[in-house]
Amino acid sequence: MSNSRHLGIAVAQMGPVHLNDSRAAVVKRLVEMLNEAASRGAKLVVFPELALTTFFPRYWMTEEEAVERFFERSMPNKDVQPLFDAAKARGVGFYLGYAELTPSGERFNTSILVDANANIIGKYRKIHLPGHSDHKVDAPFQHLEKKFFEVGDVGIPVFEAFDTRVGMCLCNDRRWPETWRVMSLQSAEVGVLGYNTPSVNIHWNEPVHLRMSTHLVSLQASAYQNAMWIAAAAKCGSEDGHHMIGGSVIVAPTGEIVARAISEDDEVIVTSADLSWVENFRNHVFNFAKHRRPEHYKIIVERTGAGEPLPIPKI
Amino acid sequence: MSNSRHLGIAVAQMGPVHLNDSRAAVVKRLVEMLNEAASRGAKLVVFPELALTTFFPRYWMTEEEAVERFFERSMPNKDVQPLFDAAKARGVGFYLGYAELTPSGERFNTSILVDANANIIGKYRKIHLPGHSDHKVDAPFQHLEKKFFEVGDVGIPVFEAFDTRVGMCLCNDRRWPETWRVMSLQSAEVGVLGYNTPSVNIHWNEPVHLRMSTHLVSLQASAYQNAMWIAAAAKCGSEDGHHMIGGSVIVAPTGEIVARAISEDDEVIVTSADLSWVENFRNHVFNFAKHRRPEHYKIIVERTGAGEPLPIPKI
Repeated sequence: MSNSRHLGIAVAQMGPVHLNDSRAAVVKRLVEMLNEAASRGAKLVVFPELALTTFFPRYWMTEEEAVERFFERSMPNKDVQPLFDAAKARGVGFYLGYAELTPSGERFNTSILVDANANIIGKYRKIHLPGHSDHKVDAPFQHLEKKFFEVGDVGIPVFEAFDTRVGMCLCNDRRWPETWRVMSLQSAEVGVLGYNTPSVNIHWNEPVHLRMSTHLVSLQASAYQNAMWIAAAAKCGSEDGHHMIGGSVIVAPTGEIVARAISEDDEVIVTSADLSWVENFRNHVFNFAKHRRPEHYKIIVERTGAGEPLPIPKI
Repeated sequence: MSNSRHLGIAVAQMGPVHLNDSRAAVVKRLVEMLNEAASRGAKLVVFPELALTTFFPRYWMTEEEAVERFFERSMPNKDVQPLFDAAKARGVGFYLGYAELTPSGERFNTSILVDANANIIGKYRKIHLPGHSDHKVDAPFQHLEKKFFEVGDVGIPVFEAFDTRVGMCLCNDRRWPETWRVMSLQSAEVGVLGYNTPSVNIHWNEPVHLRMSTHLVSLQASAYQNAMWIAAAAKCGSEDGHHMIGGSVIVAPTGEIVARAISEDDEVIVTSADLSWVENFRNHVFNFAKHRRPEHYKIIVERTGAGEPLPIPKI
C-alpha cells in the first residue's frame, strides 16, 4: 500500500488476578509484558480493564468496602509507579484500566492513555455499565457495575497521540455500535479497550460459546464499519473459581483479526498496524461526508429505549 | 426456549439476470422460488435488490435511457403480477427490490413488503447510495447509483406484519450500523434486504475476499447488536461478464449464520426463526432503556462527515 504509516501496537492479555494477589505482584506482571512488547516493536501497549485487581464487581459488598480494597485514589500511585517507570525507560506508551476514586468521592470504571514519556494524556470513564445494582442472591455470582460505578462523564474522547488519533473504551462498550461511531466521527484511527467478560451469563441461559463469538464479531464489524484498527485486551481465565473468556485480538480496518491470543494467561500479541488502510476505507465505501444520512438517524439520539414504530410516511 | 414464536423465513437468492433477459422470464424464476419456499414452510420470502433487471447502474447511459429500460412505473404491473398471484395462492408474503419511477418522475432504489394477501403493506427507498454520478471512463464498469437514484425520502420505517415487526433496507445500507439501530429502536424483530455486490471494487485495489467477509461480518454483528433476525438475498454470479458475490444468509440474534446459500445461482434457503431470541437479548445485554447513553451519541446526528476530535473535558 502506498504512503503506509505504521504503528507498533501490542495487546498484553492478563491471566487471572486473584483476591489475594497484591497490586505490586500484578504490576510486576504488567512490567514484564510491557518489556516484551517493547522488544517486539510496540509503541503502544494495551492492558485490560480493571487490570490491577480481580474483577471485584462479581462480589456483593458495600461501596465503602469496594473503595477501600479495589479503587485507586491517584494515578500513578506508589504501587503502579514501576509501570510508568518502565514505559519511560522503554519509550513506549500504554492504555490501562482501573477503578478510579475521584477527590470528590465519585467512582468510575476508568482507563488512561499514557505516552512514551509516562505522562497521562487521556482519560476515559466507561459509559455502558452492564449488570445490576441489587443483590441477586440466587445467582452464582454478581455483576455489580451499576452499583459500584457511576456512568462516565467525559463522553468518548479521541486523543492526538502516537502520531495518530486514539479512542478508548471499556468492555461492554464494544458491543454498542455508537461507541465506535463516536470515535470515527472524530477521525480516530485506533481504538483500544480492555475487558473482563465472564464465561457464564447470570441473566439467562446463554450458550457459553456465544460469549466468544459475539465478542469477536462485534470488534470485527466495528473495525470495518468505522475503518479503524482495534486492539482489545482481556483479563481472563479463572479468578478464584470465576472463569472469564480470553480472545484478545488486534483487528484491522478490513474486519480481519491480524493477531490473537491463544491462552487464558499473560500473553503478548503485537502487530505493525498500517494506518493507511484507514484512509483507504474512509476515502471510498466509508466516506462519511458523501454517504451518511444523519437526517434519517435522529431516533438514535431521540430515544433511549426501543419503542413503537415511527409513523409510516404516505407514499 | 420458553414462549417460542416461530416465523418461517426464506431467502430466494438469484443467479444473474442478463441485459437481454425479459421481465417475464425473471418473474417466472421468482415464482418458482416462491413456490419452493412456501413448500418448505416459509411465510415470508426475501428476494434481491433490483431483482427484475440486471444491475444496470454498472452501465453508463442517460437517466432517460435507464428509466425507459429498467424502471417500474407501477407495482404490481403486468409483468410482475404473476408473482403477486402466486403469493396470494400460496398464502405467503415477500420482499422485492426494484427501480421505482414515481408519477412525479422521481427515481428510487426501492423495496416493497407484500403480505400473504398480495397487498403492498410497506415501501422503503434506499438511503445509503454507493458509487458515483460521473462517468469513470477508465474503470472496468460503473457504479452509478448516485446518478440514477435519489436518496430515499421515507427514512427507515418498520412495519407490523407477519405477526412481528419488519424493517427493510437495501445492499450498501447493511454496512452502516445506523440502519439497523434505527430499526431496533422501533422494535423491529426481523430485518430484510436484497443486494447486488460486485466482486471487484472499482474505487481501489480491495482484496476480493473482503467483499464476502465484510458482507457477512456486518450482518452478523448487526443481528447480534440489535437482537434481530436478518435475512439477506443476493443477486449474484456473472451478469454479462460482470461478477457479483453470493453469500445469501439468514442470521440469528446470536450473530450466527443459521442458513447460507452455497451457489451463485437461483437458490432458496429457509429457516424457522424463533423470535423469542429477540426478546431474550433485548431483556438483558441489549436492554436499550437500561444501558444506552444517547447524551454521549449526539455527534452521530450532528456530524455527517468525520472531523476534528471534540474538546477534551478537563478532569
